[in-house]
Amino acid sequence: MSELREKARKASECARILSTISTEEKNQALQLIAIQLIEEETYLLKENDKDIVTARQNGTNEGLIDRLTLTSSRLVDMAEGLRQVASLSDPVGEVLSTDTRPNKLKISKVRVPLGVIGMIYEARPNVTIDASSLCLKAGNAVLLRGSSSAIHSNTALVTVVQRALEQTKIPVEAIQLIEDTSRETATEMFTLNEYLDVLIPRGGASLIQSVVKNASVPVLETGVGNCHLFIDRTAEKDMAISIAVNAKTQRPSVCNAVETILVDREWAILHMKELLQELANKSVSFVGDEEARAYDSRIEPATESDWENEFLDLKVALKIVGSVDEAINHIYTYGTKHSESIISEDALNVENFLNKVDAAAVYHNSSTRFTDGFEFGFGAEIGISTQKLHARGPMGLEALTSTKYIVQGQGQVKG
Amino acid sequence: MSELREKARKASECARILSTISTEEKNQALQLIAIQLIEEETYLLKENDKDIVTARQNGTNEGLIDRLTLTSSRLVDMAEGLRQVASLSDPVGEVLSTDTRPNKLKISKVRVPLGVIGMIYEARPNVTIDASSLCLKAGNAVLLRGSSSAIHSNTALVTVVQRALEQTKIPVEAIQLIEDTSRETATEMFTLNEYLDVLIPRGGASLIQSVVKNASVPVLETGVGNCHLFIDRTAEKDMAISIAVNAKTQRPSVCNAVETILVDREWAILHMKELLQELANKSVSFVGDEEARAYDSRIEPATESDWENEFLDLKVALKIVGSVDEAINHIYTYGTKHSESIISEDALNVENFLNKVDAAAVYHNSSTRFTDGFEFGFGAEIGISTQKLHARGPMGLEALTSTKYIVQGQGQVKG
Repeated sequence: MSELREKARKASECARILSTISTEEKNQALQLIAIQLIEEETYLLKENDKDIVTARQNGTNEGLIDRLTLTSSRLVDMAEGLRQVASLSDPVGEVLSTDTRPNKLKISKVRVPLGVIGMIYEARPNVTIDASSLCLKAGNAVLLRGSSSAIHSNTALVTVVQRALEQTKIPVEAIQLIEDTSRETATEMFTLNEYLDVLIPRGGASLIQSVVKNASVPVLETGVGNCHLFIDRTAEKDMAISIAVNAKTQRPSVCNAVETILVDREWAILHMKELLQELANKSVSFVGDEEARAYDSRIEPATESDWENEFLDLKVALKIVGSVDEAINHIYTYGTKHSESIISEDALNVENFLNKVDAAAVYHNSSTRFTDGFEFGFGAEIGISTQKLHARGPMGLEALTSTKYIVQGQGQVKG
Repeated sequence: MSELREKARKASECARILSTISTEEKNQALQLIAIQLIEEETYLLKENDKDIVTARQNGTNEGLIDRLTLTSSRLVDMAEGLRQVASLSDPVGEVLSTDTRPNKLKISKVRVPLGVIGMIYEARPNVTIDASSLCLKAGNAVLLRGSSSAIHSNTALVTVVQRALEQTKIPVEAIQLIEDTSRETATEMFTLNEYLDVLIPRGGASLIQSVVKNASVPVLETGVGNCHLFIDRTAEKDMAISIAVNAKTQRPSVCNAVETILVDREWAILHMKELLQELANKSVSFVGDEEARAYDSRIEPATESDWENEFLDLKVALKIVGSVDEAINHIYTYGTKHSESIISEDALNVENFLNKVDAAAVYHNSSTRFTDGFEFGFGAEIGISTQKLHARGPMGLEALTSTKYIVQGQGQVKG
């Protein structure tokens, strides 16, 4: 039996135990993992260093190396994250509804763990701890499949986690790392319906698409955000510019940053130059349609790909539109149903936009940068779902649960 | 462009309109479809007859021909079903939560339609109307892909539905039938992520498995129920026997019927013979483990396949167990997480069973035959989900919806 199948089988067995573990025991385990991470700093940094040496030998760029790097203070942050998850209320066992039917059957809908979660992710070793803590808190076993570039770091982190679990009633197989980082193993995970209840890919668009296309295990799709800001005719100038600058530049590499700004024609005549100047002051470069380009010679012509894809960079696409409906149609054509915002003082246009734009989060007079589990008050985030089934938008602990019906009778038979 | 892609594109356009159609307009459309079905009885029965003639020529068995047949009274039932769906409350627009964050952003979670639903189903033409009415009520466009054996019936039904829709504000593309019933077209549907938000297969296990294995569009898996009844030591004799007989024989061909009865050893010594006699009186045949077989020479040896698969027939597998934990382990090994029941007067064993058995519905002192959208009070059912994501157990209108976050601000930017 392959490493993957063997660990998946153990995870499935373990999930049965986890579903009956008390909140206190789960919280205690999270606290113990936090302590263990700090205690084993020397070991963790030494193992992490092996990955960094290899990355440098492979000519990895400094941005990626930074994301790969563990430091003393990053371990402290991870420990703090674990304690925060421990402080969140436990979704498992929550009674969502109770109904007594005319035949006296009492039917309760109760939150239960999903079971076994497969995480497939890239580079950042902090995902190893984030995902593990959320899966554990929601009573799930997790199979972690990180990238080969972080294999020493991930192995060390999971070793430390398991040392902590050894001190609890929770089997160490609750959190396991797949050490074989070959592509074949990832592919085998895609179809391991026998043991896996859900797959969560975290990483670039190509990883996510590969999982969505090839997995028969149900997938929670996260990630790609081609987000738009629509500045309506009645938008207040200062508010619109401040939101545009924030949504584009505050952290351009993330999925809830804005990629295209749609500007009402009349607003553009009055304020387009100031908008462009403020963005340029933050080193933003521009592409745009012909009408937008007439405002500034620095605006390069936008290609179809510019409208379709995330820049994830200090670059923005600009388009002049004649109405809220034209903006809505553009978003329908090019959006990825992540986060979309309208800046407007016109109640009818706002209602139109919020109702008709189909996205996980639609905003009025706000930056799109708030689409995030912490900002939404969930206390944690396993990712941002861009699919419509199960969970949509920021996913906290509840997204890592399912439900079951508990039916209590007194001998009922069907007539 | 293929028929499928063209219709899917239209469905996607139509879904945008449907999401803003009022409850009254949707209900009116359902009422008009009900009227149209009755008015066009002659046409519908004539077209249905073509399918029946073909089925007889192909030597189709009478059971399947009966399921294929439309009659005057079945059309009346369909019309009644449409009126019932019209009377259900509209899930779309329901506000599930509202939260004002410390930064004054007001975040509401609102129920919205899923979008475009692909239904892939076998034989029974009534599914055409059932599925259409539920999808429409929840604001979704639906692409119907029935089987070739019902093509004339389905074409006629959808023609009649569209004639009714022509009298409303709802575009006729809200409900479309794929007339090309080739396998290639079904396969093309599996990966039409560009236009389809979800696939719902309804039919035999092989159809469902084919969709689950091959679809990149998210799937709502329905159907297979290898359900168990556990008769505990303390089970009241008459209750246990009456539930066993009901769960096995009241309608053996359905997914919530019981396939295996697990009998506590001590209970068996006292009551096994009577249980077997009552089942035999209803023409049930038996397979069982060695210990069960000692009670009756009519019990054939059970094979691994008998424990694993649904009989969907007047046949039951019998196994003697020593404890509730042995029963739980058997269900873990062979169950399909559909419906599982314990008959017991021992509170601890009941709690153990209800907590540890992982299934869409777990029962105490009741037949499993109640796992059904109508019995659960949903007023309708699109199928019974055996997966853990999105919806689990009987699926009513809510399962055909997603959510979106509506965020209202006053110029908020992320710090």
